[in-house]
Amino acid sequence: MKIGLDAMGGDYAPNAVIEGAFDALGQMSSGDRIVLIGDNGRIREKLASLDADASLFDIVPTSQVIEMSDHPAKAFSQKRDSSIAVGYGMLKKGLINGFASAGNTGAMMVGASYTVNVIPGVFRPALAALIPNINGKSSIILDVGINPDSKPDVLLQYGILGSVYAKHVLGVKEPTVGLLNIGKEKAKGSAAVKAAYELLSESSDVTFRGNVEGHNLFTDEMADVIVCDGFVGNVVLKMAEKLYVVARSKGIKDSFFDRLNFEVVGGTPVLGINENVVVGHGISNRMAIMNMLLRTRDVVQADLAGKIREAFGA
Amino acid sequence: MKIGLDAMGGDYAPNAVIEGAFDALGQMSSGDRIVLIGDNGRIREKLASLDADASLFDIVPTSQVIEMSDHPAKAFSQKRDSSIAVGYGMLKKGLINGFASAGNTGAMMVGASYTVNVIPGVFRPALAALIPNINGKSSIILDVGINPDSKPDVLLQYGILGSVYAKHVLGVKEPTVGLLNIGKEKAKGSAAVKAAYELLSESSDVTFRGNVEGHNLFTDEMADVIVCDGFVGNVVLKMAEKLYVVARSKGIKDSFFDRLNFEVVGGTPVLGINENVVVGHGISNRMAIMNMLLRTRDVVQADLAGKIREAFGA
Repeated sequence: MKIGLDAMGGDYAPNAVIEGAFDALGQMSSGDRIVLIGDNGRIREKLASLDADASLFDIVPTSQVIEMSDHPAKAFSQKRDSSIAVGYGMLKKGLINGFASAGNTGAMMVGASYTVNVIPGVFRPALAALIPNINGKSSIILDVGINPDSKPDVLLQYGILGSVYAKHVLGVKEPTVGLLNIGKEKAKGSAAVKAAYELLSESSDVTFRGNVEGHNLFTDEMADVIVCDGFVGNVVLKMAEKLYVVARSKGIKDSFFDRLNFEVVGGTPVLGINENVVVGHGISNRMAIMNMLLRTRDVVQADLAGKIREAFGA
Repeated sequence: MKIGLDAMGGDYAPNAVIEGAFDALGQMSSGDRIVLIGDNGRIREKLASLDADASLFDIVPTSQVIEMSDHPAKAFSQKRDSSIAVGYGMLKKGLINGFASAGNTGAMMVGASYTVNVIPGVFRPALAALIPNINGKSSIILDVGINPDSKPDVLLQYGILGSVYAKHVLGVKEPTVGLLNIGKEKAKGSAAVKAAYELLSESSDVTFRGNVEGHNLFTDEMADVIVCDGFVGNVVLKMAEKLYVVARSKGIKDSFFDRLNFEVVGGTPVLGINENVVVGHGISNRMAIMNMLLRTRDVVQADLAGKIREAFGA
C-alpha cells in the first residue's frame, strides 16, 4: 500500500508532518510506504534532522503550496504544482492508494470533486468524525462541517455513508443510525430534520433507531452512526475537542476526556468520493499527523471508497 | 415580590417542587413570597412532611395538571384549571410578579403567547441558557430550543434580547454579541447565519464581535451573548449538561464542570414576552427548583421583561 501525504499541509508543515510520517511508518507493515509530496529540500532536511533514512519514503517534489487562507477552488486550479493538486493527480492515476492532508480542507474537497470525482448517486461528500462514549466505544458523526443546510435526502445518505464506514472500518456488524435532534418525538426539530426522520424510517438501507439528543452523546444511548447537518456537527465536534483541552488545563487525566483529543483521532475520511482520502486539522501536530496516517491506512485497507461505491450501486 | 410557582410541573412534582420552594424561601428577602399553584392537599401534605409553616406560602388550589406528554396548545386551552393556566392568569392580572415552572415547556410557551403576549416587535420569544467559561464568567446562549429554523432577523433579535438580559440581570456593562458559526470568516455557515452576520454587523442595537466557533465556547473567546438557531443551541446545551454528568460519574470534582450542572442554573427566562417567566428542566430536582426560583427572583428584580419592552420601544 502507498499512502500519499501532503507534506506541506497544516500550520506546522512541513516539520510536524514529516515527524508524524516518521512515527507512523514505524507502526505500519513493511510493505506499506508513505509518499511525501512537497518541498524536496525541506523534506530531506527534516528527515536528516530526524536521522531518518530518506529511502524509507518516496518523495515527490512540488514547487507550490496551497495556503490555509487561499481560496480553495482558485488555488486548486491555479497551483497545479501544489502538493494537494499533485497528490490528487497521483491518486487518480493509481500511483497512491490513499491521500492524506492536514492542509486547506476546502481545497481538498475541491480537489476531490475535480479529479477523483464524487461517486455517482452521492449528493454531497461528507466528513465523518468519531465521538467517544464513556464505555470505551466510539460513534461516527457526520457531516462535521462540509455541508451546512443539509437537505433531508442528503441526511439520509449520511446514514448510509456512516453505516458503511462503521461496518468496514470500525468493524460494527449491524450499525444503527440515529438522527441528532432536539427531542425524542419524530415531530421535533427543524423542517429538514423532520423530513429526514421520515426518510430514515422508511429506508431499507439503514437500521434507523430514531432521534439522538445532545444529552445522549457520550453514552450507549448514541447510535453507531449519528446523522446531522454539517453546521451542527461542526459545532459539536469543535466543542467536544475543546473539552479535552479544558480537562487537560484542569489537570484532569481521564481516558474518556483523552479520547476527545483530536490528536488521537488524527483525521476524518471524506465519504462519498471515488478514492480514499483523509483530512486532518490545520493545527495537526506530530501525533495528530501520525494518527491521520494510521487512519488512512485503515481506510485504504478496508477500501472504504470501494465499499461506498458498492452501497450506491456505482 | 410574589413569585408564582407551578407546583405540579416537572417529573418529580409536586414533592421536589415544594422542597425546592422551601429551600428558596430561606434565601429570599422577608418581603418576598412564593405562591404555590397546584393540588392543595398534596401541597399541604408535603409542607407538613417538611415541618414547614404553610402560612409562609400563598397556596392557590388547582384541580388539573398539564402532563409532560400533553399537546401544549390543546392542553393549555382545555385544562383551564391547570397550574400553568391559572399561573398565567394570575400573572396577567398582576397577582404575581413572575411565574416559574419546570412543567411542559411547550404549554408554558403557548400560555405566554395566549395570555401575557409577545412584546410588540419581537418576532419569536426565545429561551436563554448560561454557558460557563473556565475563568469563572458565564455567557448567555440563545435560543436553546424553542425555535429551530431561526430566520436571520430573528437571530439579530436574539442578540438584542440576550444583551438586555446580560446587562440587567448579569450586570455586564456593555455586552458583546457573537454568532455561533463554523468558521471565523463572515462567508461561513448556513444561509441564515450568513445573512444574520450581515444584520448583526450593521445593527446599532448590539455590540457585534463576529463569529464564535465550537472551540471558542468555555473560554474568554466567547462573547457575552452567543446567538444561534434553537436547534444548535439545544444540542449544545444538552451536550454541555451531559458532560457534567460524565465528569461526576468519573469522580471528577471541578468547579468548571460543576457549573455545567443544570441544577445550579435552575431555569432559563423566556425572553420577548410581556411578563417575567422562567422555565426549568422537566427533570428538575429540589436543588434545581430552588435555583429556578432564585433566578426568577433576579429576573423579576431586574424587571427583565420591562427592560426588553423598552429596548423594543414597546
